[in-house]
Amino acid sequence: MLLHLSSWPEVEAYLARSPGIIIPIGSTEQHGPTGLIGTDAICAEAIAKGVGEAVNAMIGPTINVGMALHHTRFPGTISLRPSTLIAVIQDSLTCLVQAGFTKFFFINGHGGNVATLKAAFAETYYHLEGLRLPQADRVQCRVANWYMCSGVYQLAKELYGNQEGSHATPSEVALTQYVYPEAIKQGELASEVNSGHGIFGSTDFRRRYPDGRMGSNPALATPEHGQRFYELAVKELSRGYLEFLAQE
Amino acid sequence: MLLHLSSWPEVEAYLARSPGIIIPIGSTEQHGPTGLIGTDAICAEAIAKGVGEAVNAMIGPTINVGMALHHTRFPGTISLRPSTLIAVIQDSLTCLVQAGFTKFFFINGHGGNVATLKAAFAETYYHLEGLRLPQADRVQCRVANWYMCSGVYQLAKELYGNQEGSHATPSEVALTQYVYPEAIKQGELASEVNSGHGIFGSTDFRRRYPDGRMGSNPALATPEHGQRFYELAVKELSRGYLEFLAQE
Amino acid sequence: MLLHLSSWPEVEAYLARSPGIIIPIGSTEQHGPTGLIGTDAICAEAIAKGVGEAVNAMIGPTINVGMALHHTRFPGTISLRPSTLIAVIQDSLTCLVQAGFTKFFFINGHGGNVATLKAAFAETYYHLEGLRLPQADRVQCRVANWYMCSGVYQLAKELYGNQEGSHATPSEVALTQYVYPEAIKQGELASEVNSGHGIFGSTDFRRRYPDGRMGSNPALATPEHGQRFYELAVKELSRGYLEFLAQE
Amino acid sequence: MLLHLSSWPEVEAYLARSPGIIIPIGSTEQHGPTGLIGTDAICAEAIAKGVGEAVNAMIGPTINVGMALHHTRFPGTISLRPSTLIAVIQDSLTCLVQAGFTKFFFINGHGGNVATLKAAFAETYYHLEGLRLPQADRVQCRVANWYMCSGVYQLAKELYGNQEGSHATPSEVALTQYVYPEAIKQGELASEVNSGHGIFGSTDFRRRYPDGRMGSNPALATPEHGQRFYELAVKELSRGYLEFLAQE
Amino acid sequence: MLLHLSSWPEVEAYLARSPGIIIPIGSTEQHGPTGLIGTDAICAEAIAKGVGEAVNAMIGPTINVGMALHHTRFPGTISLRPSTLIAVIQDSLTCLVQAGFTKFFFINGHGGNVATLKAAFAETYYHLEGLRLPQADRVQCRVANWYMCSGVYQLAKELYGNQEGSHATPSEVALTQYVYPEAIKQGELASEVNSGHGIFGSTDFRRRYPDGRMGSNPALATPEHGQRFYELAVKELSRGYLEFLAQE
Amino acid sequence: MLLHLSSWPEVEAYLARSPGIIIPIGSTEQHGPTGLIGTDAICAEAIAKGVGEAVNAMIGPTINVGMALHHTRFPGTISLRPSTLIAVIQDSLTCLVQAGFTKFFFINGHGGNVATLKAAFAETYYHLEGLRLPQADRVQCRVANWYMCSGVYQLAKELYGNQEGSHATPSEVALTQYVYPEAIKQGELASEVNSGHGIFGSTDFRRRYPDGRMGSNPALATPEHGQRFYELAVKELSRGYLEFLAQE
Repeated sequence: MLLHLSSWPEVEAYLARSPGIIIPIGSTEQHGPTGLIGTDAICAEAIAKGVGEAVNAMIGPTINVGMALHHTRFPGTISLRPSTLIAVIQDSLTCLVQAGFTKFFFINGHGGNVATLKAAFAETYYHLEGLRLPQADRVQCRVANWYMCSGVYQLAKELYGNQEGSHATPSEVALTQYVYPEAIKQGELASEVNSGHGIFGSTDFRRRYPDGRMGSNPALATPEHGQRFYELAVKELSRGYLEFLAQE
Repeated sequence: MLLHLSSWPEVEAYLARSPGIIIPIGSTEQHGPTGLIGTDAICAEAIAKGVGEAVNAMIGPTINVGMALHHTRFPGTISLRPSTLIAVIQDSLTCLVQAGFTKFFFINGHGGNVATLKAAFAETYYHLEGLRLPQADRVQCRVANWYMCSGVYQLAKELYGNQEGSHATPSEVALTQYVYPEAIKQGELASEVNSGHGIFGSTDFRRRYPDGRMGSNPALATPEHGQRFYELAVKELSRGYLEFLAQE
Repeated sequence: MLLHLSSWPEVEAYLARSPGIIIPIGSTEQHGPTGLIGTDAICAEAIAKGVGEAVNAMIGPTINVGMALHHTRFPGTISLRPSTLIAVIQDSLTCLVQAGFTKFFFINGHGGNVATLKAAFAETYYHLEGLRLPQADRVQCRVANWYMCSGVYQLAKELYGNQEGSHATPSEVALTQYVYPEAIKQGELASEVNSGHGIFGSTDFRRRYPDGRMGSNPALATPEHGQRFYELAVKELSRGYLEFLAQE
Repeated sequence: MLLHLSSWPEVEAYLARSPGIIIPIGSTEQHGPTGLIGTDAICAEAIAKGVGEAVNAMIGPTINVGMALHHTRFPGTISLRPSTLIAVIQDSLTCLVQAGFTKFFFINGHGGNVATLKAAFAETYYHLEGLRLPQADRVQCRVANWYMCSGVYQLAKELYGNQEGSHATPSEVALTQYVYPEAIKQGELASEVNSGHGIFGSTDFRRRYPDGRMGSNPALATPEHGQRFYELAVKELSRGYLEFLAQE
Repeated sequence: MLLHLSSWPEVEAYLARSPGIIIPIGSTEQHGPTGLIGTDAICAEAIAKGVGEAVNAMIGPTINVGMALHHTRFPGTISLRPSTLIAVIQDSLTCLVQAGFTKFFFINGHGGNVATLKAAFAETYYHLEGLRLPQADRVQCRVANWYMCSGVYQLAKELYGNQEGSHATPSEVALTQYVYPEAIKQGELASEVNSGHGIFGSTDFRRRYPDGRMGSNPALATPEHGQRFYELAVKELSRGYLEFLAQE
Repeated sequence: MLLHLSSWPEVEAYLARSPGIIIPIGSTEQHGPTGLIGTDAICAEAIAKGVGEAVNAMIGPTINVGMALHHTRFPGTISLRPSTLIAVIQDSLTCLVQAGFTKFFFINGHGGNVATLKAAFAETYYHLEGLRLPQADRVQCRVANWYMCSGVYQLAKELYGNQEGSHATPSEVALTQYVYPEAIKQGELASEVNSGHGIFGSTDFRRRYPDGRMGSNPALATPEHGQRFYELAVKELSRGYLEFLAQE
């Protein structure tokens, strides 16, 4: 069930049978010369929908702008500051908790979101306790990164070896090709690509990674690969969601 | 052009010819017993895409959660506080201005966003001036409400008279039916519907408008109506965008 | 009754008979070469006092600095950021609600305040609900712009036609002349005056409106006009206040 | 010169001869059974006007709501949180500094404002340095409490001895009687009055000081006393302002 | 008892007999050419420990970074903005109040902290009342500045006369020499030292006080003096703490 | 070199040879029935001092209160909200960057700090870029968790197997015993201890982990173990610091 395609009585009925909701979160950031700026949101949203169908869970609206400050020297990147993203998460979850949701499963497509999400969860639990909502002490949030699913990880290794890299990876590009075959970009990629640096400010990032890729060769991606990644992620995260829901 | 389906070099190329971007903004809120919770985002996004194609403009990611605090007693509604939404707008526009965008045309689907958006624009201009960006004094934001287009307004009056109401209106419901015919809800609507009250807190709102509608009869909506609204809005807002872009 | 000239037992007695309070809000901003920087606060305060006498209502302290960021390239302008003004409103109303006030009627003298005020009302309702005050769900705020009163609008049209303009208007200047005849400024006004531009950042504003006027000819103002505007506004807003108070 | 009764060209002319401005700051808070809720703002404003005339200085708009959280269990009190007041001061001074003002002399009528004002000055200096305004390192703020003027202090001692107390004092009440003789309140005062407690939360405050007075006997106040306090304060603060202005 | 060397059951046991806690607060800021950057925290912490032993009270962790924005042009200084320090105090006290502490005695080593601390106390009382904690109305905070103890003040006068100055004073330097004899700095001090200026921005401060001292001659300090200051402060603040604890 | 035991000219001299600083960060939180509330700060501080001596680096003041909201149902715990800790880090680093520091190596003793620290680093880089400091794009932060050092991890496994657990672990308790042998607590520990649950709100945490331990048996700790952990951590983090410093 997609929240945005539901009516409020349908949500009410859903809540009578389940307190869980899946929230896709991505980012709007450069993904190298050939990757889509929406890659992280596209992947998270597609997988979340797949999981939602598999486990009959409610899917919330995609958070399509996340924490990508280090990518902001590349045009098209949009980022929230961590403190803003914390406020967004807190406000959003507070509404949903008041309605009766208590189990929040974030399917995440961007490594840069993880720290801020975890900080936001802590801030939100505290905020809800301060509001003295009776259900506050049952609220649970979890972030599940699709690219960390063991099947995904193994397939990426098998298909791309160390050309998988860590940003604008062929695995995520492949997944977007599967979802949006009409938006596959052609383009020459430099054969040299930097890798292994830390991530600091945005100017520094662009100096280290001039075309935006981090050690990756997205030219290896194909839509067929993307479908395999998609299926592996949906399968693994469906199981993960059900375990999360069942957990006391 | 959709920003999320573009690569950063494509954005760079776009900026060489245009400083304009269209940002759809909606809401995630109850729309009566039969309206979709995502109605406002769905309408804004669909029309924005139509305008983008018509005028060859860049479309940013949809802001799908807006200012809907008064709807939060209905399950499924998600809202930001106005101060959070101001921070979201400020952070987002700052990224885009640093990349070279200076003309921001928000296509809005929710009346409750307007005040906060205008406040956010003022706060953002001031913030950009404080950052001493050279292009700060050329930044312009405008909010265009699709439901206020004169053609849309007239057609709604013609088709629905005073059963258009002011929330969960047949016109917006029709538009979502055109975009998502698979998500048309059936359901009995009370023949009595309240209207004419002010909007205050969320508990008060639900007391005044127990099923979420404000004076509307969404049962009148049809997908065919929706297509007509869509086309009228796209036409009028395409002209509006071009005028905004041309304006000094 | 003026709150600042009352004692707390008098406020307590007032609250036993009425939950309503009128709060004048203006701005401290340039009003062209001959208009007073305090124009908006002066007008709002004078009219609020008149209304208070007419309907025997409590008048709170005037908020004399509002949202005028776009005027800040003219010396003497003072503005809050919208997010600061939201905090001011929220803090202030929270105090008054805890004391028993639930009906807040803002008499406003500045168009630039409206969006932020409306955002502030929404944020405040939400905040009060979070505090779990029993009276939170009866709190109602309304903003009434004196310059939008139909009688005022018609008289301005009649007296000044399109020389009324939209900032540093002869109608508001006239009203300040009626209130402060000793502060009437003489001064040559350029016969050309710009109009019709949007409002964006402060540098942009000054470039478009070099002497601060927006399409207006304040030289047409007289104290006698001012008195007529005053009386029309007091009459209309007194009725408006009583209706607001009576409304469930 | 009163800023609110000036035009922007007059402010520009003033700045050519002086970078100084006087800002009255008071509070909107209970002042015992017979004191005016606006006492602190009334006193600060009246004295500031007197000083402005004496030394030909610009007087900004009165900040009539300050930091009075501990008085909020008495109806009519309005307070900002310290962090809100800091934001108000920072926003306001930033506007004035950009216009050319660099010497800010706050004439204060409320002891509870002092700590927050000093914190706000520090935060503002830092903010202005961050904005890289060239004049930032010349900005100076000072708070001058009229009730701490040595002449005022001595006269109060002489007239009232230890019945001066520390809140709702006869000296401040006298001053308001001088300024607003039409608003002198009659009323029985309990002969017992508490004093000597610390100031903590608002509920605690009301428990310790049930009628709002802190050790004072405002029944001793007369308008004639008020005039003498006024004249002493104006004289002393005029000298203080000139010294502040002259100080490098 | 030192909180950081206690276990939670020990804290629980302590709370059964006392609601009081002593919190040392200092600063990390330049103290002239020979003073330690940690001077204020070192002094506050040492004295707090002495008091804690004398009166058998719990000592919380030292707040070693305070409000020292005006010292930030000297390398090594670290400061919070006042609004950040307010948040730190509020968060910290909220935790402790929820555990049962209600009497907070801050032993402070830095004049620059006082205003912000007082603002923070007010903000915290208000916050706690908003949380509706039953014990909120018994919470009391006090700031005790060790350098203002009458015995300390007199001894400093006796030993150093007007060479005590007001920053990087021989008395505080002496106290650090007593606590950390291994960290006594040698170094030539200019015989001229500025004094008597106000404190404004950081660039201004460094211009007025080029080596960081304010009218002081820290070369007069000895560890033996330090011991005497320490003992006087511990004695006086022990009495102060007990009075504070006993006070209703 | 310890910053708090240095003078500002010493810091200036240090900066002439190195831009690096080590900042210990811990927490003030329950560590089970026998662990010290200051455990995380004690460990981080002790190891940081050891590293500082080994590599001749500057050690900043210990951040002794971190992000421990989930422990706040145990008396003695003090926590900042994540958004407050972000502000603390941003303010602190901004001061140090303005002084010339650009390499920040946080030695961390608490897993709960990591997410917020990483969020804070991102927010700080962005803030520094906005301030337009020339050195902003060279600023680098890293968090190094002493308990994740491979030698530490292996020794803990060897000594304690799965009785190491994940909170109030024998390894961290041992380290505090080495540093503060006088504060070793005796006490019966329940033989059953929970483990394996996620971390959510504070009430939930206490319900799952009633005595505060997470799967650990701190009774296994000895001061001798502590010394070995200390030495391993100092050795490994000294190497880590030097690599961080050398890294471009």
